Amino acid sequence: MIIVLRPHSTPEQIEHILERIKELGFKAHLSKGELRTIIGVIGDENKLHAEPLSAIPGVEQVLPILKPFKLSSREFHADDSVVRVGKVRIGGGALGMIAGPCAIESYEILDTIAGQVKAAGANILRGGAFKPRTSPYSFQGLGEEGLKILRAVGDKHGMPVVTEVMDPRQVDVVQRHADMFQIGARNMQNFDLLKEVGQTRKPVLLKRGMSATVKDLLMSAEYILSEGNLQVVLCERGVRSFEDSTRNMLDLSAVPNVKGQSHLPIIVDPSHATGRPDLIPAMSRAAVAAGADGVHIEVHSCPEKALSDGPQALLPGQYAALMQDLRKLADVMGKEI
Amino acid sequence: MIIVLRPHSTPEQIEHILERIKELGFKAHLSKGELRTIIGVIGDENKLHAEPLSAIPGVEQVLPILKPFKLSSREFHADDSVVRVGKVRIGGGALGMIAGPCAIESYEILDTIAGQVKAAGANILRGGAFKPRTSPYSFQGLGEEGLKILRAVGDKHGMPVVTEVMDPRQVDVVQRHADMFQIGARNMQNFDLLKEVGQTRKPVLLKRGMSATVKDLLMSAEYILSEGNLQVVLCERGVRSFEDSTRNMLDLSAVPNVKGQSHLPIIVDPSHATGRPDLIPAMSRAAVAAGADGVHIEVHSCPEKALSDGPQALLPGQYAALMQDLRKLADVMGKEI
Amino acid sequence: MIIVLRPHSTPEQIEHILERIKELGFKAHLSKGELRTIIGVIGDENKLHAEPLSAIPGVEQVLPILKPFKLSSREFHADDSVVRVGKVRIGGGALGMIAGPCAIESYEILDTIAGQVKAAGANILRGGAFKPRTSPYSFQGLGEEGLKILRAVGDKHGMPVVTEVMDPRQVDVVQRHADMFQIGARNMQNFDLLKEVGQTRKPVLLKRGMSATVKDLLMSAEYILSEGNLQVVLCERGVRSFEDSTRNMLDLSAVPNVKGQSHLPIIVDPSHATGRPDLIPAMSRAAVAAGADGVHIEVHSCPEKALSDGPQALLPGQYAALMQDLRKLADVMGKEI
Amino acid sequence: MIIVLRPHSTPEQIEHILERIKELGFKAHLSKGELRTIIGVIGDENKLHAEPLSAIPGVEQVLPILKPFKLSSREFHADDSVVRVGKVRIGGGALGMIAGPCAIESYEILDTIAGQVKAAGANILRGGAFKPRTSPYSFQGLGEEGLKILRAVGDKHGMPVVTEVMDPRQVDVVQRHADMFQIGARNMQNFDLLKEVGQTRKPVLLKRGMSATVKDLLMSAEYILSEGNLQVVLCERGVRSFEDSTRNMLDLSAVPNVKGQSHLPIIVDPSHATGRPDLIPAMSRAAVAAGADGVHIEVHSCPEKALSDGPQALLPGQYAALMQDLRKLADVMGKEI
Repeated sequence: MIIVLRPHSTPEQIEHILERIKELGFKAHLSKGELRTIIGVIGDENKLHAEPLSAIPGVEQVLPILKPFKLSSREFHADDSVVRVGKVRIGGGALGMIAGPCAIESYEILDTIAGQVKAAGANILRGGAFKPRTSPYSFQGLGEEGLKILRAVGDKHGMPVVTEVMDPRQVDVVQRHADMFQIGARNMQNFDLLKEVGQTRKPVLLKRGMSATVKDLLMSAEYILSEGNLQVVLCERGVRSFEDSTRNMLDLSAVPNVKGQSHLPIIVDPSHATGRPDLIPAMSRAAVAAGADGVHIEVHSCPEKALSDGPQALLPGQYAALMQDLRKLADVMGKEI
Repeated sequence: MIIVLRPHSTPEQIEHILERIKELGFKAHLSKGELRTIIGVIGDENKLHAEPLSAIPGVEQVLPILKPFKLSSREFHADDSVVRVGKVRIGGGALGMIAGPCAIESYEILDTIAGQVKAAGANILRGGAFKPRTSPYSFQGLGEEGLKILRAVGDKHGMPVVTEVMDPRQVDVVQRHADMFQIGARNMQNFDLLKEVGQTRKPVLLKRGMSATVKDLLMSAEYILSEGNLQVVLCERGVRSFEDSTRNMLDLSAVPNVKGQSHLPIIVDPSHATGRPDLIPAMSRAAVAAGADGVHIEVHSCPEKALSDGPQALLPGQYAALMQDLRKLADVMGKEI
Repeated sequence: MIIVLRPHSTPEQIEHILERIKELGFKAHLSKGELRTIIGVIGDENKLHAEPLSAIPGVEQVLPILKPFKLSSREFHADDSVVRVGKVRIGGGALGMIAGPCAIESYEILDTIAGQVKAAGANILRGGAFKPRTSPYSFQGLGEEGLKILRAVGDKHGMPVVTEVMDPRQVDVVQRHADMFQIGARNMQNFDLLKEVGQTRKPVLLKRGMSATVKDLLMSAEYILSEGNLQVVLCERGVRSFEDSTRNMLDLSAVPNVKGQSHLPIIVDPSHATGRPDLIPAMSRAAVAAGADGVHIEVHSCPEKALSDGPQALLPGQYAALMQDLRKLADVMGKEI
Repeated sequence: MIIVLRPHSTPEQIEHILERIKELGFKAHLSKGELRTIIGVIGDENKLHAEPLSAIPGVEQVLPILKPFKLSSREFHADDSVVRVGKVRIGGGALGMIAGPCAIESYEILDTIAGQVKAAGANILRGGAFKPRTSPYSFQGLGEEGLKILRAVGDKHGMPVVTEVMDPRQVDVVQRHADMFQIGARNMQNFDLLKEVGQTRKPVLLKRGMSATVKDLLMSAEYILSEGNLQVVLCERGVRSFEDSTRNMLDLSAVPNVKGQSHLPIIVDPSHATGRPDLIPAMSRAAVAAGADGVHIEVHSCPEKALSDGPQALLPGQYAALMQDLRKLADVMGKEI
């Protein structure tokens, strides 16, 4: 950590800062430049987090040197992690192709869609039973009834299933029925929920919050990892921006950005990112070419009758056509679906 | 609701759309322009929410005419609502001046700060017992022990108290000790938590999420109101932006923007918005001049030893000086502190 | 255009609006719903632009139905446009691979780099002679001397050349030396400059502004097209966002988004978008997979000695390795480099 | 400047960096911590700008210590600057109240509006003759004819006049007719234009770009100051954001933020920032309370017939009422209108 002092800091201020550093068990290293005095703080920077050095009079800025996450970092674990969801692997060259409707509406509809996406090459089935809806007047999901349908349909088609958990009190019931938890964008910093899924041993699909930096995303993963659950898959799903012709802005550079500093797998969700089926195929191809470990796509056999987010779903035929392209790209990238 | 069709939509597509509208119990009103055909949908727009009309082939865009919130709207309740926190009123000309440290650290520290902010004119005491921290390695708050300290100090100084609740399972314990719930920015769309506090009859301070629009904020208030709890105070606390010299960007226009369309009181938190004590006084003055119903400021007697967010806290003396300015501005605005 | 009236608009207000519409030569179409009255305006919407209907008392909102751009739209020109830069084609299945240093520093350095990028497969040489620098104290480019070097080096290696023009007064001199104008992000809405290059018949590479929507970008292209110059290539180069680990946020969805509504070619610049050489290869691959008509990459043989933007340049060897990947992806996409 | 090395940087890399620093005429100061090696670079940091130290192998990050602007900084000039526009002072306790229509439409209309705003207390008249319009099909302004009208009306009412200049070739003609140049948001980084007005001795109103940081704004001011023109007034006018109910997001914290680090006056334009007349009064009051040196407001006697941006203009009566409030607030702030 480096402390930069204000232009006319007094000797008393400098003395006070040096004492505080010593009190905290660190060594200080003073260096007077032509225009600024700076102090290097030597010791385990992680222990300094809570200490608001920048509030000390005379301090202009405090520059941290180390990254604040540990268990999710490449420095902690150099090789790519591989997360297993049932028999499906995500990471290390294996692509997780997650597909299904936004919400679970009925056994029949889900069964139809599952058959179609499985045939097209999807390897994990998704569907929401607890739905985070902006409006309290919108369809909120079927709850446990939906989870049972998801389990039954997944088993019938031999696909592991992933579904969103929104409340720490739902962790138990979701755990009984699903193979993977999904933490949605709105809950990326719901820290109690992160701790709760961190105490299970089920894999977690952690979506990036709408205004979360890549660092914030890795810090949220750190919450899960630090509870002992190492099975975390990150998901880029777009962030809020001024662009008003897409629902969010897909930040694909997050894929190589995460991979450079973390061992965790990262997949891409172009459905929520764009909110537009006409953009999903191009963004799915781009995701695979950027090095993503999978793609998460909403598919519905009748979008106009879907109870949630129908307009952004691909039709099963569109999904099948896209999967053919993705297989060719995976091949070029040396990956397997 | 107005449906705009694509340039070359076919008669079959138009027929299909008209049938769907009829099936849903609405009347359609067809109008063929020179370059586009549009269909007006007549009936209770609120019932159309879940129906993804935009997924129907031939549809270019669907334009809603009504605002999606009801109970929080001025159309529902024309006069300004006044929320009571203990004996303190917020709204309708009365300003809620909330002050206190970021986190509750000990009885002694909180007692000192409470005495100072009370003397300066604060009327509600704040302090965090459950802290949402980006890092799992940062101080997470004292929990129930902290709530007890907050209650005791509030009682001693005759100030009602507000504190953050992060998890639906904490609602009971927070309710026992505090006079007002705070829902933090990261939980603005934690819908289960919103429903849970909606079922109590304690006032709620609902902070705007870091990437929430004003409409999103009002929709989240709607979750609480629709459960029967009408005691909601909104709080603008800055949103994420590209500006890197402040922690967030304070969107003060949210104050008149909310007031134009909602009867709910709205206060401003310049501490979290700017993250910089040097900007807090100017932004507090601006908040009162913009018509806010109160200001929420973090104050700490020794910011450099605070366990959380010290650098953004005002010193008690700075707070007292600021309150003098705010009183003069409140006077010009015809309000009382 | 559709005009939505406020809840309690008076008959006089409605009458006044209907008269204004008539005065302007349009037909009005009144429709009273349960909660709102709406008025459809029938006629050539393009002629209504300047008329601030929304300022009329009683009007709640004015919803345009048509897109505001014409010459750049697919409705005007259904097939993909192909732009020729010297003998190189961009669009219609042909990829423009633009490479070179940020700034032209000397004949020798540019000659070395040109030889290397040409060997790797680049087909257009770039280099800045007039540099838009945030600081007046930074290197501002060699000016006309730089243009002459660029021309000579381009001719030696048989590569057409592109360079930035920042000022309408530079259009003549740049035109004499270069094969393609570049309009930088900071000048995307420098309308006088757009008109000036619009009056030439040289192709223009128009970069998206840092806070421009896709619609804004197409409107700026419209300025050039409407002066008679149809040779416009768009360039996505990242927009400003809250993410602080990359220079900008690359909005790759702009590629299919533009292609859906415009016939103009669009290429991607991952160098300026990310500002990080470690992310450029992944984002270049993603660009080709997303359907871009080319990639614009900064390459420097000695980034640490570059006079401008060195840290974001690829080394020639890195560029050559990347081009091998891009050729395979172009193949999958049915395109040629 | 501080250079942080990567975790496993080699002795050769460190040696190479130390040599580069020496070559550049600086002293290096090596410090090996437990987890990172850092190098302090001692000497005039301003001379290091162009040197891309971060491109050197082994370097993780380069942290500048000094601010990149000089002439606009408080370190260069400790007291508030006062800019004179005709006989009107802006800064140092005097408020510049700029008002007038968006575009100059005719002598009669401008004359009417000028009389009204003058009577209400405005001291500088604005009006656009060259209009930056997103669409080439929108009204582009009256050009020199408009400038003559502005001059004549300003003289009649005894008000100095400000108008936008968009192109370096217009500087001469604008200079002949106006008392102050306005550089619009879209041209904040049109560096040739900045240099051109920097070579005159007329005051300049420099508006913040839609995605410019406060630092970017000060760097653009630096372009003008470094050419010798010290008469610069900054203007906060809102930035692009995800909030879709206002045109831009007004960043009022820019006012104290600028004042903390620069001596230049800064005013606020709530008209362009919000695009909504219902929000302008509250934001104008907030601007004065935040410490702004003036307010820039669009006023039109018949917004519904304005040729440009009518919907965002205040009516003369609304402006007069607002000015009464602003006078009271100026009084509290110890300022004079």
